[in-house]
Amino acid sequence: KLNIDSLDYQTSHRTITLPGLVNIAAFVPGLAKEGSKDFELVTRESVASGFSMIRVLPLGVEDSLTDAKALEAALANSKVAHCDFNYSVAATSTNSQQLSPLTSRVGSLFIPFNHLSGNINKVATVTSHFGVWPALKPIMTDAKTTDLASILLLASLHNRNVHVTSVTTKDDIKLIALSKEKGLKVTCDVAVYALFLSQNDYPTCPALPTAEDQEALWNNLAIIDCFSIGSLPFQLAHDMKQDVNAAFGIADTLPLLITAVCNGRLTIDDLKTRLHDNPKTIFDLHDQPTCSIEVEMDRSYDVQPGDAWSPLVGRTLKGTVQRVTFKGKTAALDGHISSDGSLGTAASVANPVAVASVASPQLRPESSHGHQNL
Amino acid sequence: KLNIDSLDYQTSHRTITLPGLVNIAAFVPGLAKEGSKDFELVTRESVASGFSMIRVLPLGVEDSLTDAKALEAALANSKVAHCDFNYSVAATSTNSQQLSPLTSRVGSLFIPFNHLSGNINKVATVTSHFGVWPALKPIMTDAKTTDLASILLLASLHNRNVHVTSVTTKDDIKLIALSKEKGLKVTCDVAVYALFLSQNDYPTCPALPTAEDQEALWNNLAIIDCFSIGSLPFQLAHDMKQDVNAAFGIADTLPLLITAVCNGRLTIDDLKTRLHDNPKTIFDLHDQPTCSIEVEMDRSYDVQPGDAWSPLVGRTLKGTVQRVTFKGKTAALDGHISSDGSLGTAASVANPVAVASVASPQLRPESSHGHQNL
Ligand SMILES: [Zn+2]
Ligand SMILES: [Zn+2]
Ligand SMILES: [Zn+2]
Ligand SMILES: [Zn+2]
Ligand SMILES: [Zn+2]
Ligand SMILES: [Zn+2]
Ligand SMILES: [Zn+2]
Ligand SMILES: [Zn+2]
Repeated sequence: KLNIDSLDYQTSHRTITLPGLVNIAAFVPGLAKEGSKDFELVTRESVASGFSMIRVLPLGVEDSLTDAKALEAALANSKVAHCDFNYSVAATSTNSQQLSPLTSRVGSLFIPFNHLSGNINKVATVTSHFGVWPALKPIMTDAKTTDLASILLLASLHNRNVHVTSVTTKDDIKLIALSKEKGLKVTCDVAVYALFLSQNDYPTCPALPTAEDQEALWNNLAIIDCFSIGSLPFQLAHDMKQDVNAAFGIADTLPLLITAVCNGRLTIDDLKTRLHDNPKTIFDLHDQPTCSIEVEMDRSYDVQPGDAWSPLVGRTLKGTVQRVTFKGKTAALDGHISSDGSLGTAASVANPVAVASVASPQLRPESSHGHQNL
Repeated sequence: KLNIDSLDYQTSHRTITLPGLVNIAAFVPGLAKEGSKDFELVTRESVASGFSMIRVLPLGVEDSLTDAKALEAALANSKVAHCDFNYSVAATSTNSQQLSPLTSRVGSLFIPFNHLSGNINKVATVTSHFGVWPALKPIMTDAKTTDLASILLLASLHNRNVHVTSVTTKDDIKLIALSKEKGLKVTCDVAVYALFLSQNDYPTCPALPTAEDQEALWNNLAIIDCFSIGSLPFQLAHDMKQDVNAAFGIADTLPLLITAVCNGRLTIDDLKTRLHDNPKTIFDLHDQPTCSIEVEMDRSYDVQPGDAWSPLVGRTLKGTVQRVTFKGKTAALDGHISSDGSLGTAASVANPVAVASVASPQLRPESSHGHQNL
């Protein structure tokens, strides 16, 4: 062991251990499509990339989880799961009553403003869902601009917490900042791609922030409760007319963030707070004390063009995920995935395990440990 | 005098005296159009119909009051004024700074959501206006549904009062009711036409409430701070493809409301509160102690088809305006207008007259007094 440590010392490689990460907004394109392997692909790439839990967005490319039937279809597609997961259900203008019986089986209600057609009365829709959705169960939305202000008012009037996912603009993050300052119960996430890619680079992808918006996101880091992956990688690839698979963009998350840590734009604590602590608290997720990851901090690599398109080609990144331990077992080691997909379980309901009796995963940003084959 | 009173007793005619009324949302189609007589027409019909003050909406058919030049044009058209008046200015996505110098000359800022084009960022627009518009100067909006919720949140975050004009739907009045209940500083008005005409009768006029919406407005009377005339009569005539003049609908206001009083749906106090007391308070208008009107309560008449189209033809109404006293002089008597348009003045700024030293106009709903030629 001493031998290995001295090897590590010589090459200045630092490895940190983090708890298993949570992707609070996982996009599974073929969500409820019969026989789709997208869920398996997404969980496999997730666990290999350091995520031990994903919260699946209820909006796929063709299907949305708006009723029990769709939820069953999604669950049927999630028998092989490489990490823990839960589903949300999506609000429509007419399904508030139908969703009630599903609350114990899902992680949250998602109110998809950007998919609601323009003609429905959004205020009435949101109000009807607030009226029946259980008070302690999370509510998530993708509302922007006027819709965002609207749902924040309704949440405030009905005394509900709301989580706003995938904030991309200066105006929206400022509105959330002001709302938090005034005591409104709102939390938010920003997709990692939105922190590092902008319309400057990809003018044909309106889902990305402008350079000015992106700067505002960084300036409001304290307002951002969580980082997410979301559907932004998929949307970017789509807008760039590139073939994408369901797992696209997931593996880029940690390298982008760790590189920002190395560049002094983030701290490890910023990262851990937004990919573990806050997600667990906001979405009432069970802790996973036997899940952890080891991340190589210092070795840099140039992203090379590969078989699949990547917006990161040419960038120099750090932050290779070296080892992922999932439920006490090695799920991935130096890029080799050993998970067979049998350990991931549905985690819709907060697990009543006595969390206090197990040691919290320890954050060791300064620790170094040995490894041989980098 | 005794003689006349006994005549009145015989015919059971009851006349009540009310203070001069305020139309908080007067629509002047040719507002800033050079040489337009619309303003004169509107004030003439207003004073004859019992209004001693009008607040002019800053949106005409072709022109809006969005800058100093347009305000000058409107003021040039208002040299002949049969009642007191003020103008508001209309917010655009870019004019928040330009409106600042005009604040002392206008009654309020109007934020016209229904005229803002869809692509602009409404949150940023509203926020920029809240940032520069003086804190004590009224703000009025025509926002509906999601836009309404949005501006109520922004008003709350920026600690501003907002007056919502021309509420027509059940959802909007419920949202305002809930907002008031939660302590938000919001007031609202309903156009008188919206209380008595619905899409049931006029399916091609979407600006009217549905029958269900109208019922909700009546059920929420306590939430309605003011009655207004607004542009609804003009819109209805337009949608019915009828010729309209600027004065259309104004004279119908009191008869519709007085008839509702006679039918027990309203009290005189409901009416006075919403056409005098609340308008004065909400919009910080000078009192007009020498303005009053006498209204015939009991005589009913059938509305006959006339030269101009009227949606009220065939209805039986009460509430003829018998005498209007404007600034101590008789401006109209039994339908004969004696005003020459020289007494109305611009009333943009609250008048510092010592109101306490003059007696408040007395409300005498039960008083009867004589008249001869009805
Ligand atoms: Zn190393
Ligand atoms: Zn509620
Ligand atoms: Zn944990
Ligand atoms: Zn290998
Ligand atoms: Zn009489
Ligand atoms: Zn402010
Ligand atoms: Zn008065
Ligand atoms: Zn006559």
